[in-house]
Amino acid sequence: MIERLSFNQITSKHATLEDCAEACVRHGVGWIAPWRDRVQEAGLQHSARRLRDSGLRVSSLCRGGFFPASTEAERLRRIDDNRRAIDEAEELEASSVVLVCGPAPDRDIDGARKMVAEGIAALVPHARGRGIRLGIEPLHPMFAADRSVIVTLAEALDLACQFDAATVGIVVDVFHVWWDPRLYFELRRATGRILGFHVSDWAVPLPGNVTGRSMMGDGVIELRRIRAAVDETGYVGPIEVEIMNEKIWSQPLDVTFEQTIQSYRDHVEN
Amino acid sequence: MIERLSFNQITSKHATLEDCAEACVRHGVGWIAPWRDRVQEAGLQHSARRLRDSGLRVSSLCRGGFFPASTEAERLRRIDDNRRAIDEAEELEASSVVLVCGPAPDRDIDGARKMVAEGIAALVPHARGRGIRLGIEPLHPMFAADRSVIVTLAEALDLACQFDAATVGIVVDVFHVWWDPRLYFELRRATGRILGFHVSDWAVPLPGNVTGRSMMGDGVIELRRIRAAVDETGYVGPIEVEIMNEKIWSQPLDVTFEQTIQSYRDHVEN
Repeated sequence: MIERLSFNQITSKHATLEDCAEACVRHGVGWIAPWRDRVQEAGLQHSARRLRDSGLRVSSLCRGGFFPASTEAERLRRIDDNRRAIDEAEELEASSVVLVCGPAPDRDIDGARKMVAEGIAALVPHARGRGIRLGIEPLHPMFAADRSVIVTLAEALDLACQFDAATVGIVVDVFHVWWDPRLYFELRRATGRILGFHVSDWAVPLPGNVTGRSMMGDGVIELRRIRAAVDETGYVGPIEVEIMNEKIWSQPLDVTFEQTIQSYRDHVEN
Repeated sequence: MIERLSFNQITSKHATLEDCAEACVRHGVGWIAPWRDRVQEAGLQHSARRLRDSGLRVSSLCRGGFFPASTEAERLRRIDDNRRAIDEAEELEASSVVLVCGPAPDRDIDGARKMVAEGIAALVPHARGRGIRLGIEPLHPMFAADRSVIVTLAEALDLACQFDAATVGIVVDVFHVWWDPRLYFELRRATGRILGFHVSDWAVPLPGNVTGRSMMGDGVIELRRIRAAVDETGYVGPIEVEIMNEKIWSQPLDVTFEQTIQSYRDHVEN
């Protein structure tokens, strides 16, 4: 049963959206999570039609966010870009946009966190109007300097709880949160706020930082235990396999799909 | 004023303890933090005499810890090794042993955390008897899989608070904790429990993982702000510069000392 498996497009970074969608159909994967650059490459309307015609459902659109910037003009430009991401998600019939919140433009991490909250607040009315949910994804603290100042489940959840649950929630990615001593407590606290669940694994040694993820089962993460905790919150949505890994990127698409399905079956499914 | 500056020996990994001690004297640095392998290489008694004769004070001995292991025999062996580290610290007149707590031997991170608590409990009577304090150092979560399951200030502090403050405390290293949304709250909570304070910086991109640290001022960490928060807890002890960085390791010792003193003066001192 791979009914909940969603293939996040970055797992096959060098494939087009079209190739990726065809591979999903060929391998019986019913969900896909496209990235904006690949959607733009193929054209938004064409992509939406293509995915619909393939019978694929879109688990999320990757990605919005990157709110903090040195100038107000730049911050407003980014909010506009996030509004476009919401419009694209609506066209693609995705239920949510994943937010990678962005780093501090200077050393002021508290200031950057405030800009993230303001950025999300600015987006909420537009997201609500389009029926698209915003999923705040806490990133691993090793990305605090260059990708996201939001680095723990607790922090993401506190932020989400400033807004209504119908519009703002969190995305739980095991690679980013597995180390947290408060993991299971925060997952219970996240009941009703989980919009997405991403799996991969943390191998030792890590094959890279941004490209440091491995297939499920090849690392140290307690995948079934985390999945059970996410299930217990009542989350019944898709489970995205999102793996950035140079070796996996360099292999044939069908091999990646076979590995993805096998390791999902062996290490994530109940 | 570099009165509180302590040179952690790993900052010049390829120098012997003797070379390192001489460089401290030559550059007016009054504190040193030796590593056990370099002490053993020179001989414990000889090292102790040499440091004493140089007028150097020992801020801490690096390092004990690594408690979790698959078998009880191995766990006991490691506790014995930690007892030896305490004896060495006493001989060197160090006030504390830094504990890097170790990773999980398998995927069971909760089990490993329990083994850490049990390991420290087993050491406390010996440490108390020798007058040596144990400093639990939370490591950055990117080391959770291979170096330490203790990865946040909150966790280290909760662990330390299971024991008396005269024997067990925490070591705050900016590289490991700067990203934490609870940083300043936990530092205030750590009043009376801080046994050591380590500085370096987090540059983007990180030059490595284990060897990812940079000179103060070359990265994104709010060094003065964190130092002020540590000072406000009443901590008046030495401030160790601990930098693992291949480029710094490959340069002449005197260059490293000049850079260390300059960047400490520019970015850490009040």
